[in-house]
Amino acid sequence: MQELYRGANKIIDHIIQANMPQKAVRDALKNHKFTGNIYLLAIGKAAWTMAQAAREELGGRIKKGIVITKYGHSSGDIADMEITEAGHPLPDENSIAGAMKALEMAKKLDKEDELVFLISGGGSALFEAPLEGLTLDDIIDINSQLLSCGADITEINMIRKRLSAVKAGRLAQACAPAKVFTIVLSDVLGDRLDSIASGPAAPDMSTVQEAMAVIEKYKINLCNTVKEYIKKETPKYLENVETVITGSVHKLCRSAAEICAELGYTPYILSAEMNCQAREAGRFISSIAKEICLNENTMDETTSISKIDISTCTSGIKKPCAVIFGGETVVILKGNGKGGRNQELALAAAEGITGLDNILIFSLSSDGTDGPTDAAGGIVDGFTYERLKEKGLNIRKYLDNNDSYNALAAVDGLIKTGPTGTNVNDVTVILCK
Amino acid sequence: MQELYRGANKIIDHIIQANMPQKAVRDALKNHKFTGNIYLLAIGKAAWTMAQAAREELGGRIKKGIVITKYGHSSGDIADMEITEAGHPLPDENSIAGAMKALEMAKKLDKEDELVFLISGGGSALFEAPLEGLTLDDIIDINSQLLSCGADITEINMIRKRLSAVKAGRLAQACAPAKVFTIVLSDVLGDRLDSIASGPAAPDMSTVQEAMAVIEKYKINLCNTVKEYIKKETPKYLENVETVITGSVHKLCRSAAEICAELGYTPYILSAEMNCQAREAGRFISSIAKEICLNENTMDETTSISKIDISTCTSGIKKPCAVIFGGETVVILKGNGKGGRNQELALAAAEGITGLDNILIFSLSSDGTDGPTDAAGGIVDGFTYERLKEKGLNIRKYLDNNDSYNALAAVDGLIKTGPTGTNVNDVTVILCK
Repeated sequence: MQELYRGANKIIDHIIQANMPQKAVRDALKNHKFTGNIYLLAIGKAAWTMAQAAREELGGRIKKGIVITKYGHSSGDIADMEITEAGHPLPDENSIAGAMKALEMAKKLDKEDELVFLISGGGSALFEAPLEGLTLDDIIDINSQLLSCGADITEINMIRKRLSAVKAGRLAQACAPAKVFTIVLSDVLGDRLDSIASGPAAPDMSTVQEAMAVIEKYKINLCNTVKEYIKKETPKYLENVETVITGSVHKLCRSAAEICAELGYTPYILSAEMNCQAREAGRFISSIAKEICLNENTMDETTSISKIDISTCTSGIKKPCAVIFGGETVVILKGNGKGGRNQELALAAAEGITGLDNILIFSLSSDGTDGPTDAAGGIVDGFTYERLKEKGLNIRKYLDNNDSYNALAAVDGLIKTGPTGTNVNDVTVILCK
Repeated sequence: MQELYRGANKIIDHIIQANMPQKAVRDALKNHKFTGNIYLLAIGKAAWTMAQAAREELGGRIKKGIVITKYGHSSGDIADMEITEAGHPLPDENSIAGAMKALEMAKKLDKEDELVFLISGGGSALFEAPLEGLTLDDIIDINSQLLSCGADITEINMIRKRLSAVKAGRLAQACAPAKVFTIVLSDVLGDRLDSIASGPAAPDMSTVQEAMAVIEKYKINLCNTVKEYIKKETPKYLENVETVITGSVHKLCRSAAEICAELGYTPYILSAEMNCQAREAGRFISSIAKEICLNENTMDETTSISKIDISTCTSGIKKPCAVIFGGETVVILKGNGKGGRNQELALAAAEGITGLDNILIFSLSSDGTDGPTDAAGGIVDGFTYERLKEKGLNIRKYLDNNDSYNALAAVDGLIKTGPTGTNVNDVTVILCK
């Protein structure tokens, strides 16, 4: 078991290092031809890291920069940049103050100027300027409703962006006639530009009809002003924007596969687009883990193609192995506990692998902050369930209360990395000897 | 695509044939030494098939037999046997009439007699005699609450058995001092004897405390009489019973792997104990299907163990392949549509594989009746979602209304086998060229 935990720690370290955005940002800037004055705006959980890389590449050529990231996610000053820390997953007053400053800078840009716009996930909450007539409270109320009703991230963003003066391409509109060079660190399945940070510099692909369908589906309560804005169509074309995408959950999975293979665990990437409920994903993954764990590896390609003996036919997965899942699950909030989707997935997986001594499962948010907690995710093994039981803790009660953090904390099952400086979604790994 | 569908049909046919219980029943009877008079009781969805096999093996040595199965699941008379068809998944008056007859027969048995007791899944509903003071309506009410609240089959049975004069070992108690030779066709994950058909001839492992926890968890409403019975402990030891288990979801998966390999699809059994929500399982499985479909098979064992190039590291699953999942998912009833867990799983999987032209997914109930429908399951491909859309049918609305049957029916996505005569749980297969 200790060997598995040592392996897991190495895998986690490698995954984070391999998915840091600095090199990609510098490469993208190297390959871009700047002609006028350069301004910079960086938003999202990886904003500080990306902005620092840009400063290293462009040096004093940046006239002015604004960096907006989550509390605790900046690591000191960067020359010529103003850094704002703001609220996530719910926007707060700093989210708005930062966005207002950015809007002001954007509106002053002229034809000769160019904005380097560094976007990473989390921007939807961290970067927010409500449209006229709306308050932060309106935005927070709708955000809370959307986050707790089981809507997926695409649906959530579809609504949020329509209430914003900076999202859905509106920040880029404000920059015109200046050009916008956007470098995007993707944390959205399928890398849809209009979804990442709600697409401040991307034409919006969603329609009024689709947005209204989400409102109806989840029975979201709206005031009249909000209803009017949701019914207003968003920009469908932006001629001043050029975009480079870097980072993705697919790369995240591949980096996990790389280190797992190096450590001697045959990697299987089974999904890079997990998007179901966190708790159900955990149950499903534990059933896969159990199958792999208990089965012998007696079926090779030769026997599988010819007639095979039923008694020797097994999972087809070769041990020692690492089974890898990427994506972004959703949590349906019913309780009032503390947790995040990776912690909930890991805790839900613990019951199904009870008693198995050659396996562990961990689930990790690449940004280092899973939900509103100081943990990056959770790690469980075949004895987690029993350890919880010995302490008198009922795993299902903790899951029902969305309190995965406290259950995992009681059995040393939290992964803590601190904010990592990157943000390319989540990865779950079954590690089996 | 036609090739995939031809393959799926062959796989479905083979799976059902390979999991019929006749041979196993005859073998078990051959190996058993009978000393006295033989009586027979067969319950469950496979009762008729199992009873007929017993009659073929034992012939006129069976003094008297009672067969209790689901409506439409018997295929004619069997000599010396009385056949009753009854309600499933909700018990009805015939469930009780049949069980009362069986109890009467059981109570008349003496020391020289032996009961051959053939048990298959479905018995929980089909075979029911309420304890004194309870009515069928009481039983139906609790059954309905349990089936729609999201409780898993173990939890459901834990409650049902405590209200019964035949479950939880009580039928075997009634047979004493006669011996009971039980042949069980398992449809329960982990093959727990006290769970299959609610264990009429098995000591009950559940405790009063556990049963009360289920009642609280799902907030089931109980009248006082029911509450008293739930608090009464069940038999923990039965000295007159000998049991043989045959059939299981593991064998079901292996038989699927066998035929898939024969057809040239490398089989991977990823789980034989799926037990999460049907809809979420469908979403999860579609994300696996997509990953396998889109990825190239460039990583073999050699490269995976040494340092590998990130760009060539892929899922690890070799195409053409069959990815196999066994188990029993649960449906949370919110709507009032028509469907079953396999149909719901298949329909939920359709969206995630949209546009892929080298894949299909099917989910099959081995008993041929998925939920209260005449379909055995559902089959979808990369164009199912679009076909539904063209017909103006919104997949999510149908899922929300638990109406998978009608959505699948509209696009030729139902699997219809008729009652198969066996019952060893469900299997889901991703077939990918």
